[in-house]
Amino acid sequence: MGISIGILGATGYTGSELIRLLHLHPDAEITYLSSRQYNGKPISDVLEYLQGYCDRILEEFEPSVIAARCELVFSCLPHGTSMEFISQIIDRVKVIDLSADFRLGDAALYRAWYQDHTAPALLAEVVYGLSEVYRAEIRGARLVANPGCYPTSALLPLIPLLQAGIIETAGIIIDSKTGVSGAGRGLTLKAHICETGESFSAYKVGRFHRHIPEIEQELSKAAGSPVTVEFTPHLIPISRGMLSTIYVQTEADVSALRDVLNSFYSDSPFVKVLCDGFPATKDVRGTNRCIIGLCKNDETGRGILISAIDNLTKGASGQAVQNMNIMCGFPEARALDSMPLFP
Amino acid sequence: MGISIGILGATGYTGSELIRLLHLHPDAEITYLSSRQYNGKPISDVLEYLQGYCDRILEEFEPSVIAARCELVFSCLPHGTSMEFISQIIDRVKVIDLSADFRLGDAALYRAWYQDHTAPALLAEVVYGLSEVYRAEIRGARLVANPGCYPTSALLPLIPLLQAGIIETAGIIIDSKTGVSGAGRGLTLKAHICETGESFSAYKVGRFHRHIPEIEQELSKAAGSPVTVEFTPHLIPISRGMLSTIYVQTEADVSALRDVLNSFYSDSPFVKVLCDGFPATKDVRGTNRCIIGLCKNDETGRGILISAIDNLTKGASGQAVQNMNIMCGFPEARALDSMPLFP
Amino acid sequence: MGISIGILGATGYTGSELIRLLHLHPDAEITYLSSRQYNGKPISDVLEYLQGYCDRILEEFEPSVIAARCELVFSCLPHGTSMEFISQIIDRVKVIDLSADFRLGDAALYRAWYQDHTAPALLAEVVYGLSEVYRAEIRGARLVANPGCYPTSALLPLIPLLQAGIIETAGIIIDSKTGVSGAGRGLTLKAHICETGESFSAYKVGRFHRHIPEIEQELSKAAGSPVTVEFTPHLIPISRGMLSTIYVQTEADVSALRDVLNSFYSDSPFVKVLCDGFPATKDVRGTNRCIIGLCKNDETGRGILISAIDNLTKGASGQAVQNMNIMCGFPEARALDSMPLFP
Amino acid sequence: MGISIGILGATGYTGSELIRLLHLHPDAEITYLSSRQYNGKPISDVLEYLQGYCDRILEEFEPSVIAARCELVFSCLPHGTSMEFISQIIDRVKVIDLSADFRLGDAALYRAWYQDHTAPALLAEVVYGLSEVYRAEIRGARLVANPGCYPTSALLPLIPLLQAGIIETAGIIIDSKTGVSGAGRGLTLKAHICETGESFSAYKVGRFHRHIPEIEQELSKAAGSPVTVEFTPHLIPISRGMLSTIYVQTEADVSALRDVLNSFYSDSPFVKVLCDGFPATKDVRGTNRCIIGLCKNDETGRGILISAIDNLTKGASGQAVQNMNIMCGFPEARALDSMPLFP
Repeated sequence: MGISIGILGATGYTGSELIRLLHLHPDAEITYLSSRQYNGKPISDVLEYLQGYCDRILEEFEPSVIAARCELVFSCLPHGTSMEFISQIIDRVKVIDLSADFRLGDAALYRAWYQDHTAPALLAEVVYGLSEVYRAEIRGARLVANPGCYPTSALLPLIPLLQAGIIETAGIIIDSKTGVSGAGRGLTLKAHICETGESFSAYKVGRFHRHIPEIEQELSKAAGSPVTVEFTPHLIPISRGMLSTIYVQTEADVSALRDVLNSFYSDSPFVKVLCDGFPATKDVRGTNRCIIGLCKNDETGRGILISAIDNLTKGASGQAVQNMNIMCGFPEARALDSMPLFP
Repeated sequence: MGISIGILGATGYTGSELIRLLHLHPDAEITYLSSRQYNGKPISDVLEYLQGYCDRILEEFEPSVIAARCELVFSCLPHGTSMEFISQIIDRVKVIDLSADFRLGDAALYRAWYQDHTAPALLAEVVYGLSEVYRAEIRGARLVANPGCYPTSALLPLIPLLQAGIIETAGIIIDSKTGVSGAGRGLTLKAHICETGESFSAYKVGRFHRHIPEIEQELSKAAGSPVTVEFTPHLIPISRGMLSTIYVQTEADVSALRDVLNSFYSDSPFVKVLCDGFPATKDVRGTNRCIIGLCKNDETGRGILISAIDNLTKGASGQAVQNMNIMCGFPEARALDSMPLFP
Repeated sequence: MGISIGILGATGYTGSELIRLLHLHPDAEITYLSSRQYNGKPISDVLEYLQGYCDRILEEFEPSVIAARCELVFSCLPHGTSMEFISQIIDRVKVIDLSADFRLGDAALYRAWYQDHTAPALLAEVVYGLSEVYRAEIRGARLVANPGCYPTSALLPLIPLLQAGIIETAGIIIDSKTGVSGAGRGLTLKAHICETGESFSAYKVGRFHRHIPEIEQELSKAAGSPVTVEFTPHLIPISRGMLSTIYVQTEADVSALRDVLNSFYSDSPFVKVLCDGFPATKDVRGTNRCIIGLCKNDETGRGILISAIDNLTKGASGQAVQNMNIMCGFPEARALDSMPLFP
Repeated sequence: MGISIGILGATGYTGSELIRLLHLHPDAEITYLSSRQYNGKPISDVLEYLQGYCDRILEEFEPSVIAARCELVFSCLPHGTSMEFISQIIDRVKVIDLSADFRLGDAALYRAWYQDHTAPALLAEVVYGLSEVYRAEIRGARLVANPGCYPTSALLPLIPLLQAGIIETAGIIIDSKTGVSGAGRGLTLKAHICETGESFSAYKVGRFHRHIPEIEQELSKAAGSPVTVEFTPHLIPISRGMLSTIYVQTEADVSALRDVLNSFYSDSPFVKVLCDGFPATKDVRGTNRCIIGLCKNDETGRGILISAIDNLTKGASGQAVQNMNIMCGFPEARALDSMPLFP
């Protein structure tokens, strides 16, 4: 046996990625899947490739059923809905929330970027689920806010350097590129293969993307003082993969920067700092890894850090399973040590 | 512990796919990797994404080392070379050959399509490794010829129907489409993303592709009489995936055809016959599955069968691991039950 | 100056392709663009890349305005709507209909595959716009039904051979593959890059695709007797391009087949019959060409013909402009002689 | 008739793009194509899609033949070779060099980044062919150095702002992304569809890319003082398209920045500054346009400029034809006003 798992909003990309990862987990068993749109159907009618792997019937959200059937719940609901549903079950099960609802510690900040927060009381206890940084807090948590994909790709290279005081807090630029699955399974022209295939573009340029306050909140904590970043997201015509090119001001040379990162991540199986060279998104496809390459440009006095993650795995459902492992006392890498699908 | 495994020619796409699959196998351990081109280097210098997963040094082919270190060897060498090397080790280890060298039972036929056969004595004992069809023979085999990707995609739907005598032996047309990884990691204009991306084409149209005699050999065995097929391969601008659209003449209706297939594959975990609808290659990406959809066109009296496999997994290395499982008495699906990487 | 042109339903892919082609036409000027959804906006607000090329305001459909402003109208409306609108303007302007509404000569056949025909009286005069076959009739036509993309790709290789009686009328199989733009700009999961990219699949397998009666109507005319075909469409993960692999029974050798095609198309600038080899869709990307390669398999007695077109150009808007050129007495290739965009 | 044109090294991507563009030019006629590798063959044997468009025989480089047959020559030769060949013909024909050989005005700088310069005497007269900036000098030039693709995408947005003194000269960061065709038709793993498709990565991170001195040379001229930039190139898994995301420090607001650009490019048909929003590479596919979007982030005091070009057209052969038009007194946009191929 193992722990019994529920997934709310199971038919989107983060839900299906959880099902893929948990399928290989010896200590976890899916006992509940919810879907408002498709309730009553087997999930394999909605995601046909699941036939024979997972044919469980999708159910409507029902707190008492969840309490009876699940020990831990992943919420893949959209923000707004997620906090409403979670507040009805959090007294009875552990929850890992993949939405943005509990990532910002301050309800006013949440309101400024999203909407009114309907469960502010929970903000006091929620743990931000960047596994490598908050491992100790996650261990005892009842409610974990799983980080956004862009924040994960930016925070893992930056937090150790800011904590060590080895880079400046000002002038950080994060130029990020993501595969289209980050935008979900919804139907938009942006996801139409004829509009997005064979093209490349930026979006929400300036100070518009909702991952900005999440990034700044965590960098400010690491630096011990307010950090403001420049953040520009771009769309790559692929399904999976995220690469962030990060520019920082620093007096330190590349060895010093690398030493800080290596030391910080010495016990973290999923963060890999390259000795030389830079990662491609294919190196992490389908894995929970974050690979970081870095260099120093002596002409400009700037350090350049490049991180690659799979936006659906380490950027979402993989990190969620990693957090489940930590919360439940399983080995941190359980079910997460597959190699990338190459080519 | 477990069985000790060697891979000859480990740095190509079938070699790296074996490494990916065996990484999840609890009963197999890679103890030897050969590469003529890169010997002396860690394989993770050649395939950088392997860093931290598999950093074993590549070695030159050396029979005595293989005999001392391996119980079973996969050969991913090119045809011609493969039979030469295998004949030097087959007395000491079990071998699964992913090349074409031992697929044709008749040395004269091999000569007609390839070149002189240099190990014809082994043809008497080799077992053709189409797992679902030759399971019993594979169990006791010392040398298994792993099928080609196109043959796998064509034979799995056709063999049961020909054995049952429910379709005609004449007039079979196999219109196949493959991802580019089937052509290997070698550098050719055909694999250049600017030449092949955003395009689609046929190749070796007519009676030229070397998988034709392999397909006809096995179909003739199943039918009990000579079968000649029309076979047209096409190139899809993707890495992985193979879809064969197969036209057959038959008096039977679709239920009768489906019953034959379902009955034949009732104990085969990897062959899935759809109740309705047709598969896409994404449904099998990275998996060892073969999914078959079918229908009958009453206007034309023709049955249409569509099979989807991942050319590198069920079409090559996945089936090779399946054969290893059968040869070694492991559960047939061990290390092969991952879900497809979706999306 | 030149002829004044209107486009109904201008914001979809066939509409935008017409605008692209007519932009290079010295004798045609767009004077009217309609859109129900976006009327009142500049088309360059809907298709932003048009800024500076075409900023004309989209208007609602209004027959009197069209009559006053246009000499020839292209209808890119969906079937059903198209015939309704065309019947209101056909007495005053020439029309080329890119929908399916006037392709089938028989209203009962149209009803069987689509719906009731609301303008059956026009069926008597409409000319089927396969330019190379009906050039003479198109010249004097008032209403031209522009062929479907699949029919164009299948009919151009087959009609000359059936007319010449050099292939059998029975047993024709058309295995076609298309880029996603053929399905239009509408939002469906089929067009979502995460669902369709890196995948390949068939659809409407059996006797379901609405292009079947159109193909059979024209092949039957060419053969002088009823022809029934097997037709299987597939989806390629690219925007543009269509390739049809066609299997026919024939006693003739490849030279005889090629001679018939070359002779038929000797005065047709857009149909190119290869001396050897087979086309790729990239060879025709963005052009009005149809390239045909062929061979004979002597083992099976079958001829194989492979045609490549751009589904939006020769398969839709390019052929429509070609028909306009013929109807208006312009050189047939005017504005249509651009080279493919390579790579 | 028109001007007679030769192309050296005609079979690569910049050569074939020149052929595509010149095909639509009423005043230019190709009279000579050279290829060392394929001389003696029709170019349509090497690039098969050219059959019927351009079947000219490829010839070996021979100065006297060129002098007799051509008035203007485009060199698509690799750097090093290009200057050697050009110095043999420059006294007899006008030359536009698409290689890097004459882009750096200083032979020592060329040596530092490339190799010894073998034709330094020509550096005194060469004109840097950024058409919109050096239009007057190009008009009378005998030898034009066509800019690199990355420099074109970076210089067009930056030069006007630096000339106007409205942005700071320090702290400029250029984060660029290119399609794979920029690396040419040569065979490398980087261009293998299985390695580069469905992936994204940076390369030559730090101060390594040879376009850096070219960018800095021109920015320094514009600023009137030395400018050092941060430049990071990335590879997009598409054929064509380049997008540069450029970060600058400025006191000015977005209107002021936009006014400077609009004023500078008021007479330039190919540079389009957006009123709002940002370009995608598909908006310029196959065209000679450079589209620029921009904004100001008031929190960080930074301006962000995003430029999109087609790396083979405005980034290479299109700009070369534009320069030919200027040198020869043709309208600047002749043969270059096609719309993008969409979708």
